[in-house]
Amino acid sequence: MEHNISFKKRLYEIIEVSNPEDKASKAYDFMMYVAIAAGLLPLTVKTSNTYTHLIDIITVLLFLVDYIARIATADYKMGYKHYRAYFAYALTPLAIVDLLSVLPILNLFFPSTAVFGAFRVFRVLRALKLARYSKTMVAIVNVLKYVRHQLVAVLVLTVLYIVISAMAIFQVEPDQFGNFFDAIYWSTISITTIGYGDIVPETVIGKLITIVSSLVGVAIIALPSGIITAAYIREMKRKKSEHEVKHL
Amino acid sequence: MEHNISFKKRLYEIIEVSNPEDKASKAYDFMMYVAIAAGLLPLTVKTSNTYTHLIDIITVLLFLVDYIARIATADYKMGYKHYRAYFAYALTPLAIVDLLSVLPILNLFFPSTAVFGAFRVFRVLRALKLARYSKTMVAIVNVLKYVRHQLVAVLVLTVLYIVISAMAIFQVEPDQFGNFFDAIYWSTISITTIGYGDIVPETVIGKLITIVSSLVGVAIIALPSGIITAAYIREMKRKKSEHEVKHL
Amino acid sequence: MEHNISFKKRLYEIIEVSNPEDKASKAYDFMMYVAIAAGLLPLTVKTSNTYTHLIDIITVLLFLVDYIARIATADYKMGYKHYRAYFAYALTPLAIVDLLSVLPILNLFFPSTAVFGAFRVFRVLRALKLARYSKTMVAIVNVLKYVRHQLVAVLVLTVLYIVISAMAIFQVEPDQFGNFFDAIYWSTISITTIGYGDIVPETVIGKLITIVSSLVGVAIIALPSGIITAAYIREMKRKKSEHEVKHL
Amino acid sequence: MEHNISFKKRLYEIIEVSNPEDKASKAYDFMMYVAIAAGLLPLTVKTSNTYTHLIDIITVLLFLVDYIARIATADYKMGYKHYRAYFAYALTPLAIVDLLSVLPILNLFFPSTAVFGAFRVFRVLRALKLARYSKTMVAIVNVLKYVRHQLVAVLVLTVLYIVISAMAIFQVEPDQFGNFFDAIYWSTISITTIGYGDIVPETVIGKLITIVSSLVGVAIIALPSGIITAAYIREMKRKKSEHEVKHL
Repeated sequence: MEHNISFKKRLYEIIEVSNPEDKASKAYDFMMYVAIAAGLLPLTVKTSNTYTHLIDIITVLLFLVDYIARIATADYKMGYKHYRAYFAYALTPLAIVDLLSVLPILNLFFPSTAVFGAFRVFRVLRALKLARYSKTMVAIVNVLKYVRHQLVAVLVLTVLYIVISAMAIFQVEPDQFGNFFDAIYWSTISITTIGYGDIVPETVIGKLITIVSSLVGVAIIALPSGIITAAYIREMKRKKSEHEVKHL
Repeated sequence: MEHNISFKKRLYEIIEVSNPEDKASKAYDFMMYVAIAAGLLPLTVKTSNTYTHLIDIITVLLFLVDYIARIATADYKMGYKHYRAYFAYALTPLAIVDLLSVLPILNLFFPSTAVFGAFRVFRVLRALKLARYSKTMVAIVNVLKYVRHQLVAVLVLTVLYIVISAMAIFQVEPDQFGNFFDAIYWSTISITTIGYGDIVPETVIGKLITIVSSLVGVAIIALPSGIITAAYIREMKRKKSEHEVKHL
Repeated sequence: MEHNISFKKRLYEIIEVSNPEDKASKAYDFMMYVAIAAGLLPLTVKTSNTYTHLIDIITVLLFLVDYIARIATADYKMGYKHYRAYFAYALTPLAIVDLLSVLPILNLFFPSTAVFGAFRVFRVLRALKLARYSKTMVAIVNVLKYVRHQLVAVLVLTVLYIVISAMAIFQVEPDQFGNFFDAIYWSTISITTIGYGDIVPETVIGKLITIVSSLVGVAIIALPSGIITAAYIREMKRKKSEHEVKHL
Repeated sequence: MEHNISFKKRLYEIIEVSNPEDKASKAYDFMMYVAIAAGLLPLTVKTSNTYTHLIDIITVLLFLVDYIARIATADYKMGYKHYRAYFAYALTPLAIVDLLSVLPILNLFFPSTAVFGAFRVFRVLRALKLARYSKTMVAIVNVLKYVRHQLVAVLVLTVLYIVISAMAIFQVEPDQFGNFFDAIYWSTISITTIGYGDIVPETVIGKLITIVSSLVGVAIIALPSGIITAAYIREMKRKKSEHEVKHL
């Protein structure tokens, strides 16, 4: 039992703690980054071949082992010894992403369920973990985190506005759209000012709705820009005053 | 008469006052939100069927009763007992939106006047009332309200610029546009940087006008962004100093 | 001679001084605004008819008389009595716009020179004079004026970048473009993120240039936004401190 | 030997030092600017003719002589006498641009290697040196320099996001894309909100990914805007306080 606990603790140190002097931990980190990068390669080819299939199997197995090890050592990570620690950890965003990126393993056993293949895309999200090694990246993520409530509120407002626009255009130009989802798609592409042009208004009233919609949309799209800028200025001031406090 | 007045007062409390301990008021609010959400469903199908027709009738009748009740209790809301209170309330933006969303009821009596169907879209605006329950949403709306004069001024400037661009292109490439409204449509889609590509300049002089127009347009479109950001920074500072005053 | 001078002074008062108690001046202003608005109508039809032709003649004659009167009273406006005052005034941007908007009168005498018709678009610029009656509009224009050197510098940078992109794409995909001007047009439409899609890269190297060009372009297009926002924040602070000084 | 050193020093003064009283230096600068401008002309024609070929040869030879002279006098520029000074200078970004713009000379000796022709585009970058003569341009470049780490971090984030989007769409709509590079191209054009419309999603899941991708993309594209604005506000404050210190 003693031995088991110390093995678990060592395992936790290797996979989670960032200790630059722990060679096993560094080797593990390096292996996982290679696995993440390699695991993305099969996503960039149209038809899987022997090589991509092999990469798929190896990386998914590695991710599975990593996932199980992280769950098993969750009590160390969460800081309390209780079976709830495992569930608490399993429900963190990072753990969910890890689980989703492991799902394609089901393809190995049920080859017909090709739909799990799409989950391979979650492996990319794991690559985002690399971001924590860049100080500037951390600062940017902090800025976004600081205004996350406001960005979500703007997103809700934007989605509401997209739905309003979609309903308005769908009422006056039903023939342009296969179904309501197409109207939502058109509305999003217009308000984000992408404007592919694959669906365009044809009638005068449809064009009028597009004109009004795009002018109001410009103000709505300016909101995230304003929120992020304000947060950025605050972050720069905070850093400066921290710097001044240090040098007092 | 006494009884009538107390009934009116109770009605006013139910439909307008937000008292979390008044169960009738809360039930009414909930019913109306369900009606608003349900009332939007018929807007997302191409051809109305028995279900959407039924939803249409029920929700419009509910909105009509709600509208009449709100008008009838307007003297409580406006705070003075006078027949002018009813007119004053009926002319507030919220009451006008309510009236417009009730208009489709005319379809029931005059089925041929399909044009009123388009007014159903105003129901969506009622959904915006939900926004007042989110503190962050209120803050964003306050920011937009605070700069509403400047945003309107920028809108006037933008519209003026759109008209100038439209006139210029309409003079040099009349064949590209069915009429002047098409030129306004093209100009709006270009200056908001959507650029569907359904109408594009073909001649050298037309392309030249487009180049100049889009470069100036970028500066004009940057204006709302600047205004909103400046207002946002001011809002954040105001909140911070309020916070500091509280903690003195 | 005396009489002549006092007549000129009175004329100057009517056309230039904004005195709300001078009824003749107000009537003149009103007439000119109607003329400006009416003068724009012929620009919104495809083929001129008797009505638009008549409007064209009357408004252009009015603008001509107005232009001559303004030049004749330029010594009052410029504040010094010297023949150079007339030239100095004639070279102000406002006077040049006035002259350009009068040029279409040449069409009356040389009907074949349809090219002057395009100058009718300068009448729209006269409408911008209306902006000075809106305090908010004046504030916005002041912000833009305050950063005009920086906006011009950004414009120069943007134009340089557009030319670089155009040259790069023109070297690798010459078949996509009729001539170099088309490449400039494509580059402008791409960097301003309009993206009509009438000209798109077809080769891998062309797409690569487009990718790099658009990513750098996003940073360049963010510059005017940053400049205008910074100027706006400064303007708001200036106003606030002015307000505080007043109330000391 | 003495003579040789003083000749090198004089050469250094002519090509590098900006002394307004040194006529030879000014004449050299002027000649190089003419060469830069002239060297761009061949990039604006489709098929080279005798004139553009002649311009190409002359300007490339001039650039080659200029490059050799700058390398030869690098010890003066770098401020220390050592053979490493030459290598250190040759590896500065400016020297690398100079070298790349000289590469097309290889076309003269190996006419078949048309690929070097594309390097002619680097001549444009030399034109950017002109920017240092504009105080406003220097201020803008300083702002961009000051936030270069953050802009690079945002660029990395943007590229990561582009790759994620590309992988997701490539998994669900492989038929729309020739290869993975096409998906990257589509993703970049969408996230920068250009949206040519040459490649668009066709399936429901593809459109869904596009909707989510574009909404998140708007927040990511707002980041450079926020960073540049924050840096601009800081720059304006710095200038103001410098100005105040001077006038104490």
